[in-house]
Amino acid sequence: MIQAGIDVVGIGNAIVDVIAHGEDDFLAREGLVKGTMTLIDADRADALYRMMGPAIEASGGSAGNTMAGIASLGGAGAYIGKVRDDFLGQVYRHDITAAGVRFDTPSAAAGPGTARCLILVTPDGQRTMNTYLGACVELGPADIDPDVIAAAQITYLEGYLFDPPLAQEAFRKAAATAHSAGRQVALSLSDPFCVGRHRAAFRDLVDGHVDILFANEAEICSLYETDDFAAAAAAVRGHVAIAALTRSASGSVILAEGAEHCIAASPVARVVDTTGAGDLYASGFLYGLTHALPLPICGEFGSLCAAEIIGHFGARPEVKLSELVAKTARAC
Amino acid sequence: MIQAGIDVVGIGNAIVDVIAHGEDDFLAREGLVKGTMTLIDADRADALYRMMGPAIEASGGSAGNTMAGIASLGGAGAYIGKVRDDFLGQVYRHDITAAGVRFDTPSAAAGPGTARCLILVTPDGQRTMNTYLGACVELGPADIDPDVIAAAQITYLEGYLFDPPLAQEAFRKAAATAHSAGRQVALSLSDPFCVGRHRAAFRDLVDGHVDILFANEAEICSLYETDDFAAAAAAVRGHVAIAALTRSASGSVILAEGAEHCIAASPVARVVDTTGAGDLYASGFLYGLTHALPLPICGEFGSLCAAEIIGHFGARPEVKLSELVAKTARAC
Repeated sequence: MIQAGIDVVGIGNAIVDVIAHGEDDFLAREGLVKGTMTLIDADRADALYRMMGPAIEASGGSAGNTMAGIASLGGAGAYIGKVRDDFLGQVYRHDITAAGVRFDTPSAAAGPGTARCLILVTPDGQRTMNTYLGACVELGPADIDPDVIAAAQITYLEGYLFDPPLAQEAFRKAAATAHSAGRQVALSLSDPFCVGRHRAAFRDLVDGHVDILFANEAEICSLYETDDFAAAAAAVRGHVAIAALTRSASGSVILAEGAEHCIAASPVARVVDTTGAGDLYASGFLYGLTHALPLPICGEFGSLCAAEIIGHFGARPEVKLSELVAKTARAC
Repeated sequence: MIQAGIDVVGIGNAIVDVIAHGEDDFLAREGLVKGTMTLIDADRADALYRMMGPAIEASGGSAGNTMAGIASLGGAGAYIGKVRDDFLGQVYRHDITAAGVRFDTPSAAAGPGTARCLILVTPDGQRTMNTYLGACVELGPADIDPDVIAAAQITYLEGYLFDPPLAQEAFRKAAATAHSAGRQVALSLSDPFCVGRHRAAFRDLVDGHVDILFANEAEICSLYETDDFAAAAAAVRGHVAIAALTRSASGSVILAEGAEHCIAASPVARVVDTTGAGDLYASGFLYGLTHALPLPICGEFGSLCAAEIIGHFGARPEVKLSELVAKTARAC
């Protein structure tokens, strides 16, 4: 089949978020590390859910959030990820398709249910995530459609995809297919503990298979096993064409071919829930990159999209990001 | 079983909300009347969902929202409503129980699935609701626990409960049981078209079986078939001990024993989604009433709770309402 032009295809764990408020002492009691993602099994998911407060359900998944953001900006996006043919799977498929993202990966007809992430948002707006991977473990190389990869300017991979075992093969197949077609590969490191679980594999990827790298301070420091951000930033130079390193309220630093661009964070009236901040930064950045905008503008788009997402509960945009970006551009 | 004291027991349709943004022209194309609730069947629910944008899922149901609000204020509440033993039913049970509301009604083990309400929020913040009643049609008199009703100071009934046929019997049994125990009965008219569907029955109830009536302008006008709010307000006098009539941004009017109290609306920075405004007004009002507060204070609590709910997506409070009310009281 001939594919229409795609700006970005995202590959990730297809997860429905279950989001509730949580107090710091609840995290302490349950041994949860604030701001990070922990993998949990079905029994733990049930037990933790019973202890959580009233929640809302919303489609999530790191790369899924990024793709919803790219579509909201007006970009052409596709998504590859695995849900089960259950209620949550229908919700996930509805939401990403209704957002304007192409999603052709068939649902699993057997095995574990659609993945859930139990998210506790503390009063400071930080999110602590507990992921039951469910049907995500069924994603494999057969789900990587080479025509879709070849049609996309950029193949975007979330680091979390290294957790389900089969997905690593899918990951490598996608990267190889993209490069054979003369396309670029982007990777988000996702989480410092995820980097810790797969450090050697990530270093190998960054060395030879990734063109554009997204990481926050903790993740890039974990990759190079240092406490010093400047040292980590220096270490990544030369390994990838572009590194976009995010620093929360301090904005982001973009490293590319000897150049360094410092981008301010966009103002936020009140930080309600930081879930999806990194994912939406990647949306703005990749939209800019696939529309041939200069790197500092790509970074500013990333900041704007991240600021929208942290002003409300949930990790998918509540406004049309194309209008938000246009409004800000006019105000400058 | 001996029951601990309950402030309010709410009886209603147990519904999970599916909330999405919608444009005015979408409502027009689909023949939806803004601000109202339409009953739909399972096929229409599927078709409408396919046309809707990305959504979030959150527990709702008018009386369920009111009870979550009362619990958030620190009140002792119970809820009676019917879900199926499916995924959404588990979500509903989790959310209302985790909010601190007692919920003992057994789930239906067969028949239609848990009810869903497809809500379109237009750019002006108004909500237009499309309800598939599902398992709610299974609620009947057998679900009304006389001990719980007798233990509650007030039995609160949502008018929507008149739509599923068996529930009318449950409704009348609950009201009779409450009065036999020397307790009070409150009713919310819910929706002008719901009033239109059941006008004679509602008039009969208001004449002899309801002590406290909640209605907005459109609902009280529909009950007395007039376009004139003052005429409708005059008509309700003498039929109920207390009538709390809400008027959106114009606040509310409380009529009781010849007295009339006008209550201002609480300020809202930005109206995001009006879903649940009336439900949460009732939370504040009933909390005040069951804690022996003067009627103007009950009305102010109602205004405060309504203002919290319309400032964000969804119809359950995102902050602890007891703290919100305490903060405002200190600021006065």
